[in-house]
Amino acid sequence: MRIINFNAGPAALPLPALERARDELLDYGGSGMSIMEHSHRGKEYEAVQAEAISLLTELLDLPSSHQVLLMQGGASLQFAMVPMNFLPIGASADYIITGTWSEKALAEAKIVGKPRVACTTILPDKRYVRIPKQSELDLDPSASYVHITSNNTIFGTQWMEYPSTGGVPLIADMSSDFLWRKFDAGRFALIYAGAQKNVGPSGLVVVIARKDLMAKGRKDLPKILRYETFAENNSMYNTPPTFGIYLMRNVLAWVKQVGGLGPIESWNREKARLLYGALDAMSGFYRAPVERESRSLMNVVFRLSSEALEEKFVAEAKKQGMVGLKGHRSAGGIRVSTYNAVTVENVKTLVSFLERFAKANG
Amino acid sequence: MRIINFNAGPAALPLPALERARDELLDYGGSGMSIMEHSHRGKEYEAVQAEAISLLTELLDLPSSHQVLLMQGGASLQFAMVPMNFLPIGASADYIITGTWSEKALAEAKIVGKPRVACTTILPDKRYVRIPKQSELDLDPSASYVHITSNNTIFGTQWMEYPSTGGVPLIADMSSDFLWRKFDAGRFALIYAGAQKNVGPSGLVVVIARKDLMAKGRKDLPKILRYETFAENNSMYNTPPTFGIYLMRNVLAWVKQVGGLGPIESWNREKARLLYGALDAMSGFYRAPVERESRSLMNVVFRLSSEALEEKFVAEAKKQGMVGLKGHRSAGGIRVSTYNAVTVENVKTLVSFLERFAKANG
Repeated sequence: MRIINFNAGPAALPLPALERARDELLDYGGSGMSIMEHSHRGKEYEAVQAEAISLLTELLDLPSSHQVLLMQGGASLQFAMVPMNFLPIGASADYIITGTWSEKALAEAKIVGKPRVACTTILPDKRYVRIPKQSELDLDPSASYVHITSNNTIFGTQWMEYPSTGGVPLIADMSSDFLWRKFDAGRFALIYAGAQKNVGPSGLVVVIARKDLMAKGRKDLPKILRYETFAENNSMYNTPPTFGIYLMRNVLAWVKQVGGLGPIESWNREKARLLYGALDAMSGFYRAPVERESRSLMNVVFRLSSEALEEKFVAEAKKQGMVGLKGHRSAGGIRVSTYNAVTVENVKTLVSFLERFAKANG
Repeated sequence: MRIINFNAGPAALPLPALERARDELLDYGGSGMSIMEHSHRGKEYEAVQAEAISLLTELLDLPSSHQVLLMQGGASLQFAMVPMNFLPIGASADYIITGTWSEKALAEAKIVGKPRVACTTILPDKRYVRIPKQSELDLDPSASYVHITSNNTIFGTQWMEYPSTGGVPLIADMSSDFLWRKFDAGRFALIYAGAQKNVGPSGLVVVIARKDLMAKGRKDLPKILRYETFAENNSMYNTPPTFGIYLMRNVLAWVKQVGGLGPIESWNREKARLLYGALDAMSGFYRAPVERESRSLMNVVFRLSSEALEEKFVAEAKKQGMVGLKGHRSAGGIRVSTYNAVTVENVKTLVSFLERFAKANG
């Protein structure tokens, strides 16, 4: 029996993608071995990786100015690689701070060079409840790049309109903002996304970057830490995480099969509408701290009147077949992550639980 | 139908480890979700990672001076991280060059600092056919460390006795030399091994390092590139490659179930004895270029009289259910990788093919 999984990442994966993996786990396409036992230089695996990249290019309608890279090390390695490649000594880069992950990206950049905070929405109690307006951004036109975290999993805020940065390259950590809708990737100089939200298992990072930016990266870095190395070798400089890329292929094939990112986006908007609608209707019982226009469609966070009641909420939800609802350990409260594999039906089940729980405990 | 898989890595995995993964791919331990959909901070996944580390510690009888880290980025990222952490400016490190992977490790170290070649066994035609003797090593007693590649997958050579380095820390790329026998890990300051040979799928690297060495690593590096970060956070600083670690757990449980590394080593020695025995008995037809005492037990390489005959060999073997026999693209010829999941029976099947092929084409 499959459970309803609201985990923030690693997160629920579409059942058809997992079933496909299970069915061919011992014998991929009649080859007599698992896809993870295939050489990454063999034609079977090469076809899988090519299909994954081509499906992503098609689903996101990526411009030919950009290239998809498949990497390892999590978004955390990207926090370091971005400034190592693109923040030369003597230059500056602008960081917009909207949560814990932006803080971490900034901290790594400070070790590498001289980044600058172009805006932060931190509150005196260290929480974040909103995305800044364009007018609040103190952007340096000579910055090497502007860095944002486009969805903040811990605090539940999301950039619904990405910032304008003039001619300065825009770089985004889109880990939890990736592949839930179509967007104009051409506006970004570089995007990175840990796969373990909407794309696949952990251990895989999708990067989409402008080819001319990668070519201008620092050359005095170890080869394995240069984007250009991955670009020149089509992400085959060294052995890629083959099984993760295979599963990403299965997930992308599922996205295409259900009709592409159009329907996926409608479902995600409907899930958020249902959830925030319920929270707003019961605002005496559930408190959603995020400012309305900054609300994340991916991670819906809220508080109850006490930690004890929050614990009871999580425990009773679990009894009713819903898990992954505990807020991040640094933020507390409740967090509902509604990535692509969470269905509208799943959210309706949760909403009806929200109603029953409020009635019983209000 | 499972095929006989002699791939060099990603390589064959033990069937019971894969079957276990298949059987619980949609529902791990009755939790209603795949292990790859579990939070890495949840008790189910944490137990898997703890079991993987504890099985490895038990099977290799690791000393408490050392710690196991589970990382990403392949051995290629280790080529960079080792000098970044342990080769400070103004210091030197000794590299012993026995093949392509040592050359790559050296090349990354040259970008970071000032390494020194303490020995190379390269031939004028750029091939390598042997491991150096202790007396050939020109070791610098003040080096920060000595680096070796303990098995050379491409050229088929292997250190059967590891070098003595006095008080200088010994660091080894053991990717294809790992977990095929018990060895004294305490002699090494740091070992790294890409999982995709004897341990699990690609996308996972096992590191075993002396705690005091890690604590002395450079502090002015991005956190994600410091071994100490992984050591302090028990490899949970950021999201680990959870499915790869889960599969490693399955593989290690299989190693333990068959009796540990004692029987595994006997089987590996028997496989090598059978294969090299056949090659030596038919040395007029098959030419094994590696010096006898440097022969790898993991990757057995040989040539036939022409490239056309080698192609015919690979094609006919495939028709008889044996794949992965083509030599590395840089070296040519035939390569038989006989990692743990390749059985003695599989090698006997190959040997009998070797005999038939020689008779028919000799």
